[in-house]
Amino acid sequence: MIKAAIVGGSGYTGVELLRLLARHPKVELKVITSQSYAGKKVQEVYPNLQGSIEAEFEPPTLERLCTCEVIFFATPNGVAMEYAPSLLAQGKVVIDLSADFRLRDPKVWELWYGKKHACPELLLEAVYGLPEIYRGKIKTARLIACPGCYPTAVQLGFWPLLAHQAVDPKSLIADCKSGTSGAGRKAEVSLLMAEAGESFKAYAVAGHRHHPEICQQLELLAQEPVGLTFVPHLVPMVRGIHATLYARLRREIDLQALYESYYAEAPFVQVLPPGSHPATLHVRGGNRCHLAVHRPGGGDTVVVLAVIDNLVKGAAGQAVQNMNLVFGFSESTGLETIALYP
Amino acid sequence: MIKAAIVGGSGYTGVELLRLLARHPKVELKVITSQSYAGKKVQEVYPNLQGSIEAEFEPPTLERLCTCEVIFFATPNGVAMEYAPSLLAQGKVVIDLSADFRLRDPKVWELWYGKKHACPELLLEAVYGLPEIYRGKIKTARLIACPGCYPTAVQLGFWPLLAHQAVDPKSLIADCKSGTSGAGRKAEVSLLMAEAGESFKAYAVAGHRHHPEICQQLELLAQEPVGLTFVPHLVPMVRGIHATLYARLRREIDLQALYESYYAEAPFVQVLPPGSHPATLHVRGGNRCHLAVHRPGGGDTVVVLAVIDNLVKGAAGQAVQNMNLVFGFSESTGLETIALYP
Amino acid sequence: MIKAAIVGGSGYTGVELLRLLARHPKVELKVITSQSYAGKKVQEVYPNLQGSIEAEFEPPTLERLCTCEVIFFATPNGVAMEYAPSLLAQGKVVIDLSADFRLRDPKVWELWYGKKHACPELLLEAVYGLPEIYRGKIKTARLIACPGCYPTAVQLGFWPLLAHQAVDPKSLIADCKSGTSGAGRKAEVSLLMAEAGESFKAYAVAGHRHHPEICQQLELLAQEPVGLTFVPHLVPMVRGIHATLYARLRREIDLQALYESYYAEAPFVQVLPPGSHPATLHVRGGNRCHLAVHRPGGGDTVVVLAVIDNLVKGAAGQAVQNMNLVFGFSESTGLETIALYP
Amino acid sequence: MIKAAIVGGSGYTGVELLRLLARHPKVELKVITSQSYAGKKVQEVYPNLQGSIEAEFEPPTLERLCTCEVIFFATPNGVAMEYAPSLLAQGKVVIDLSADFRLRDPKVWELWYGKKHACPELLLEAVYGLPEIYRGKIKTARLIACPGCYPTAVQLGFWPLLAHQAVDPKSLIADCKSGTSGAGRKAEVSLLMAEAGESFKAYAVAGHRHHPEICQQLELLAQEPVGLTFVPHLVPMVRGIHATLYARLRREIDLQALYESYYAEAPFVQVLPPGSHPATLHVRGGNRCHLAVHRPGGGDTVVVLAVIDNLVKGAAGQAVQNMNLVFGFSESTGLETIALYP
Repeated sequence: MIKAAIVGGSGYTGVELLRLLARHPKVELKVITSQSYAGKKVQEVYPNLQGSIEAEFEPPTLERLCTCEVIFFATPNGVAMEYAPSLLAQGKVVIDLSADFRLRDPKVWELWYGKKHACPELLLEAVYGLPEIYRGKIKTARLIACPGCYPTAVQLGFWPLLAHQAVDPKSLIADCKSGTSGAGRKAEVSLLMAEAGESFKAYAVAGHRHHPEICQQLELLAQEPVGLTFVPHLVPMVRGIHATLYARLRREIDLQALYESYYAEAPFVQVLPPGSHPATLHVRGGNRCHLAVHRPGGGDTVVVLAVIDNLVKGAAGQAVQNMNLVFGFSESTGLETIALYP
Repeated sequence: MIKAAIVGGSGYTGVELLRLLARHPKVELKVITSQSYAGKKVQEVYPNLQGSIEAEFEPPTLERLCTCEVIFFATPNGVAMEYAPSLLAQGKVVIDLSADFRLRDPKVWELWYGKKHACPELLLEAVYGLPEIYRGKIKTARLIACPGCYPTAVQLGFWPLLAHQAVDPKSLIADCKSGTSGAGRKAEVSLLMAEAGESFKAYAVAGHRHHPEICQQLELLAQEPVGLTFVPHLVPMVRGIHATLYARLRREIDLQALYESYYAEAPFVQVLPPGSHPATLHVRGGNRCHLAVHRPGGGDTVVVLAVIDNLVKGAAGQAVQNMNLVFGFSESTGLETIALYP
Repeated sequence: MIKAAIVGGSGYTGVELLRLLARHPKVELKVITSQSYAGKKVQEVYPNLQGSIEAEFEPPTLERLCTCEVIFFATPNGVAMEYAPSLLAQGKVVIDLSADFRLRDPKVWELWYGKKHACPELLLEAVYGLPEIYRGKIKTARLIACPGCYPTAVQLGFWPLLAHQAVDPKSLIADCKSGTSGAGRKAEVSLLMAEAGESFKAYAVAGHRHHPEICQQLELLAQEPVGLTFVPHLVPMVRGIHATLYARLRREIDLQALYESYYAEAPFVQVLPPGSHPATLHVRGGNRCHLAVHRPGGGDTVVVLAVIDNLVKGAAGQAVQNMNLVFGFSESTGLETIALYP
Repeated sequence: MIKAAIVGGSGYTGVELLRLLARHPKVELKVITSQSYAGKKVQEVYPNLQGSIEAEFEPPTLERLCTCEVIFFATPNGVAMEYAPSLLAQGKVVIDLSADFRLRDPKVWELWYGKKHACPELLLEAVYGLPEIYRGKIKTARLIACPGCYPTAVQLGFWPLLAHQAVDPKSLIADCKSGTSGAGRKAEVSLLMAEAGESFKAYAVAGHRHHPEICQQLELLAQEPVGLTFVPHLVPMVRGIHATLYARLRREIDLQALYESYYAEAPFVQVLPPGSHPATLHVRGGNRCHLAVHRPGGGDTVVVLAVIDNLVKGAAGQAVQNMNLVFGFSESTGLETIALYP
């Protein structure tokens, strides 16, 4: 049993971590912090946890966090970087679900996140927490930058094509769709049921913070410069991301076999049979990615369909998966929950 | 480990049983039948079960069912009663999620279900599977009639009031609301997204099959004749039942204390703090019932609010809870899943 | 052609008024005010009005309002009462969609709305704008208090029963359900898609501001003291109210004939055939109320089902209907839009 | 006043035609046919039409249809082609909302629709009813093939780029999303609320009947061979199509000015300001197309966002717009309804 702390346990990512860790057989949830709910019982704020978590939210302090072996940050961007150096100095493992350590270049980070980075020296040390691709590095990491939700779906979808140099990396398109929980538990008019329900729209076409993250990572996979058009959309549903990916083939290849071989050892990625259309419904609540690969009309355009639950494989589940690897637990521990259908 | 069979594993109740039993530590899922999907892999029909269930659907035969200790019926009404006598004769435990054994009077059954009952002699033997009220009888039962989804919510909501003779049983009102999965996986125009989405309506006000079931049960609790007006409504969501119950107080009583005492030992029923408004969202996917009891304006009308997930506590979860009791497992085994919020 | 002003044109009630008045053949929309959007083009804030309204939002001033014959207030509670005396003194017609003039007793108003009323002397003059019941008074009014959305549905549902002394007014129950637009265009966590979508819950069981309004009005109809239990619920949809009403019959009566006779002359209320279940879907966007009356099992409980679109018949449409009556237009002018199905 | 008939008035396209034509000032709705509902009052089947349409559905007969000047076919594919020759011989105008006359090559039609075409000689005479592009031809047509819903959005989005030779037509991508009403009023499991709600998925990636229609039309616009990847998706909402279109620029051009000039005279197409993200919500129920054109990062990829209501501008509204042009009415007659927001 290891002791775990969650900083920022009151947003959607935080409450999802609580759901997963409350039932994790190797973890004792010791510290759960929230500025806004400090002093309240967790299960009163989140009645879905009734009977599962007795703790109260507490204000975050370094001292309390240091009573744990692993500290998860489910905070707004800019918080984890303030705590990370001290925690690492104390020998703790830091798993950040925010964007503080996802970009390797501090200048790019500062451009997109609008402030100075508090510990740029850690950016190169941080390990990018996408286990399917970086399992080895994660096992020995002490600071893990969990990928964004869109970047998770897009990388899992493009990885075999790029790593195999099967497509032209200069003209990639990622047409992505997300449920509204991806925007967090924020009181914004645009996220109201009356605005986001029964409607569909794109947003941030001019530029989204996940764009530089995806580009950085796809270039690592392709070992070549990448040109990516990324268009996110808001879907009138709560959970789920669907990435529809387009790339131009460079050469003949058995796409189905390629995908199956890349994910043969990945417990949480399923390549569906040829001709499939994965639905977000079938991964809701589970730490899964379902993939299908198509070549419409036998032409030279590949279409990859990738679905995840943005709060699980796109956030809290992936963070737990990373923790399992760091601490030497089986990769699936605490993550076997079956998706909720219907 | 006991061996279990699911007859009719392809409807929403059946697939939910699969989700729960696939992860149950004391159960081996040995036989999964479906007329329509026989020969297909379960995980191809239900991709949420990818990697969790390797079996194929098979046609139901008595011989195959008899290789198991417990047989669940998640079938349309009228199927379980054809198999039950033979299975019981072989010493099997039968847990029926359909309505075949819920009513004690065969005439009433035949009136509401439109056919002759195949084994009326079993109606009195069958134990009504609502563990919070009938835990003792269930432990020694071999034939269990799982309650309907509406009856579960209504009985859990009215039980303390009626058992305590606190209200007038002649003028009860149950205004109930259900998500569309309650109607099953049936291709009907009225259940289409385009019809049931973004709309709210009552149905079956003139008479619903759950009405005689609820009345029969409430009379057992009240030990008096009951007068109940029951109005079900269809909510534009997938899962969840919300029962709003109205009764007239006969005498002064501490309602909160009453409810807390009746459910003190029930692992799956939570009485929320005074003033609460339970939401179906907080029990989605969990085997829970959240209750709140109100007395608006201090008058003599009690308002009870009860929420369950119709497919879990209202069907498959309750069936598993019953199985746990019959076979002497801990009541919560395999049912600890936390509800999916948001 | 009369000139109209809308004060507070930027909430859901306001934008719905804009939709209706932009196409009203007898009205010129001259002044549209909004504090928050002053200076912006209406159609940029509300792209559904693209090409239909060229005006800009402007800050509200008495001077500008006085260039119009009729002034609509689609403002938060407490605004209309500040302007009304001056506007009436200038001979203007004031149609208030907020709650400022709905209650006749200033003490009750102050209790529920938490401030002193600015012009209590107008409370008795104000005419309650429910045309089906008060058509005559409305025609000669200069200050109209448009009913709340719940009160509209509940009164239209109970009117024939109470006016005809057919039921016991001491034990009425109104179990009401509303889409989330009823709460307005407010950035609140509880109204987010991720919270209100795929969930159902009651709220304000202990007391809702529409309760005293409904009671005041039902007593006028019944000419007797009324006892009402009112429980509002939030439905995961955008538009629509469904009221399920329960009352105890005092004597035998042909309910269908009763309802049909009361609404024979009402262009916007349809009594559906016996056995019907009205759906909010069928009145969405239209200024209609669909009613059905049931007597389950032939007992002494009457169940009335009433649906309206909360933003149309429950707010903006009713306001326009009132305006039509005041200015001598045909009651249906500008309100003939057919509901949007599906 | 002209007399109109609707064949197949009972599907979603048909009932939407009824909504629009019931309020059209130049049209008398004389004949409304339906095989399944013959003999029933229209307003009983569709309560949203209560009080607006007194007629009954009748079985379709050539004799009755010939009492009208214009006959709309809102039928499954394969019906209009059986009636069209006789109706045209009688001097009637035929406006087909199905796919019978959309493709010019009978071989392609037979390949995709799986039967022999009944009157291939009419395929070249039929005018493709997209008024923004073919207004002139439509005015003198007697047989109009209304475009499919996806093709409407895709063509309106790509037209300026292709007609201006601004992009490479060989590598177009149309990533399209539709509400479930686009699939019609069909009792299919995949369209149930419980399946299509709270989920997002692609479908028919291998080939969709709208693909050959779109390709045929885009080639007419580009005057060059076209290569199009078309991926349709199902959105958990009822109405609306969002097309996200990708093309590669061939040369520098002011995209905003280009789009504004092409649609300067189109009453139903609005080019939103630069940087906009049109939402389906803002065109729901209206005969509008909202367009925005983006060039992310200033690169050579153009992203066009186009939204329509699939049942209005994508079907019934467009059919009425065509009728207006054929009979010399103002193009907007009966189509000025403002979209329903929220």
